[in-house]
Amino acid sequence: MSLSEKINQDVQSSPLGAGGQTVTVKCPATVANLVCGFDILGMALDEPYDIMKLKLIDEPKVIITNKDAYNLPTEAEKNVAGVVLLEIMEKTGHKFGFEVEIEKHIKPGSGLGSSAASAAGAAVAANHLLGNIFSTDDLVQFAMFGEKLASSVKHADNITPCITGGVTLIRSIHPLDIVQLNSPSLFVTVVHPQIEVKTSDARQILRKEVLLKNAIKQWGNIAGLVAGFEKGDTDLIGRSLEDVIIEPVRSILIPGFDEIKHKSKEAGALGGGISGSGPSIFMLCTDETFAKNVERIMQDVFHRLGIEYKTYVTSIAQQGVSVL
Amino acid sequence: MSLSEKINQDVQSSPLGAGGQTVTVKCPATVANLVCGFDILGMALDEPYDIMKLKLIDEPKVIITNKDAYNLPTEAEKNVAGVVLLEIMEKTGHKFGFEVEIEKHIKPGSGLGSSAASAAGAAVAANHLLGNIFSTDDLVQFAMFGEKLASSVKHADNITPCITGGVTLIRSIHPLDIVQLNSPSLFVTVVHPQIEVKTSDARQILRKEVLLKNAIKQWGNIAGLVAGFEKGDTDLIGRSLEDVIIEPVRSILIPGFDEIKHKSKEAGALGGGISGSGPSIFMLCTDETFAKNVERIMQDVFHRLGIEYKTYVTSIAQQGVSVL
Repeated sequence: MSLSEKINQDVQSSPLGAGGQTVTVKCPATVANLVCGFDILGMALDEPYDIMKLKLIDEPKVIITNKDAYNLPTEAEKNVAGVVLLEIMEKTGHKFGFEVEIEKHIKPGSGLGSSAASAAGAAVAANHLLGNIFSTDDLVQFAMFGEKLASSVKHADNITPCITGGVTLIRSIHPLDIVQLNSPSLFVTVVHPQIEVKTSDARQILRKEVLLKNAIKQWGNIAGLVAGFEKGDTDLIGRSLEDVIIEPVRSILIPGFDEIKHKSKEAGALGGGISGSGPSIFMLCTDETFAKNVERIMQDVFHRLGIEYKTYVTSIAQQGVSVL
Repeated sequence: MSLSEKINQDVQSSPLGAGGQTVTVKCPATVANLVCGFDILGMALDEPYDIMKLKLIDEPKVIITNKDAYNLPTEAEKNVAGVVLLEIMEKTGHKFGFEVEIEKHIKPGSGLGSSAASAAGAAVAANHLLGNIFSTDDLVQFAMFGEKLASSVKHADNITPCITGGVTLIRSIHPLDIVQLNSPSLFVTVVHPQIEVKTSDARQILRKEVLLKNAIKQWGNIAGLVAGFEKGDTDLIGRSLEDVIIEPVRSILIPGFDEIKHKSKEAGALGGGISGSGPSIFMLCTDETFAKNVERIMQDVFHRLGIEYKTYVTSIAQQGVSVL
């Protein structure tokens, strides 16, 4: 049976689909790449998060209302949550539609997985209304349509941790192979300098080829990072948070990056780097006091540079999108 | 205190060093790279293994006798075990020497860590005679002098598992950072076709640059492989045993490679590939029956190709160089 046949059968036999049910979900911010794991690693954060309300309606259409000041498109085809819901409607035979209210707290363009929160939130909320007929893999596949709209690339390193929580590995996109890693309880300090770095620009400045010797260093660090997470070895995590390929190029776009990284590690951070394609920077700490000291370092640097910023002292979220 | 000061102090206070003590060690074969972990991963095998006998002598020189038919050099400066022992003597102030008997069963040039077995065996045996004054990191550092002689590159992906047993990650060589991974009990089928592939040639045919998109696939697989070992998830290990960078180039040097790989997986192997720089090929299986079926496949292919070969059905060695 194909996926769409299976879905149709499940939807037919589901007691739901009559319209009227509502659900409210909390959709966490995420940090993709985790320094050396470009395109394959990501983790969910306890803060910030979006709130999304979905209502199942009888008419096969998607009606979107924004409850924030970001002025994101409300036409379903141009909205990240919208395209995910349209895809779900397509796969289930246009039997129903959705009313959506989005209250975004993860600023678009922050590098904290704002589009992934909308895409993953829409997929999980719709699935809840439909009686949980989809697997995690299905939800990731649906949510990737949102990422494609946002950045023209179907990537899953924000979506997956947003849906599942914790730290996740996307071993492969084709075929989809996601692996939940053990995630030690660590504090995460994040600064979002209010400058614009477009994901597409951040991708374009990367070289298409890398030196084999650098690739070897990188996969040593990735292997170390994964082993560190699985073993709960925070020193190994710290030693492995090194990126010789992407960070040296992308960090040029973020004023103050080197200073923040250097001073944060001096202040006790295990390490950290660019969150996703930036401009946000994140640092991991074992201790809340260190995490708050790191926040002060970040504030000082951007204050001195005259750049507006927002900081968070938070932790790795053990749960992904959750129903409230 | 510097390493050499520490060593001198330890040797002074050691009850040994008077000459006459002997030790016999068993030095396991190793598989470096493990398909996608080029230069960073390796594992020890229960078979084949070398036997090495060391005697501490008062005179500061190294006397080598070969107990096999490989005609390896017996001058200390040209012998892999010899240069390791000279380095240990150098670091400990030329206070003693060694008589060495080497009975090699791991054929040089097989891709099964023959030089690493000699280098690691010499380091561990000497350390035993000196009252175990060196750390594992010290032993790896000493043994790398042997690898440098054998292949002009200081690499540790055979030496480390040879010393520690199991599956090891070398996150970094400078500074040395070795990580012991969990190693599930798996069967390993190995075939050594009697053709010559020099490590230095196998290195030279590699391109100096790799496509970023291939590097990303590779680090997804490495991350998956490490997670698979740590979780004991053999399916994940199997899915991750894929190499899009090194194997497509190096496998050209090994007749029958693609056929063996394809048929072995059909016969139930998790996966496998080139052992080190070849020409040996290894396959991992969860079950001894599968492992023996894989052996027959290997035998059939090389028999048909008219190439002499040797096969082993063995397992991951949980112990490295051991004192008999």
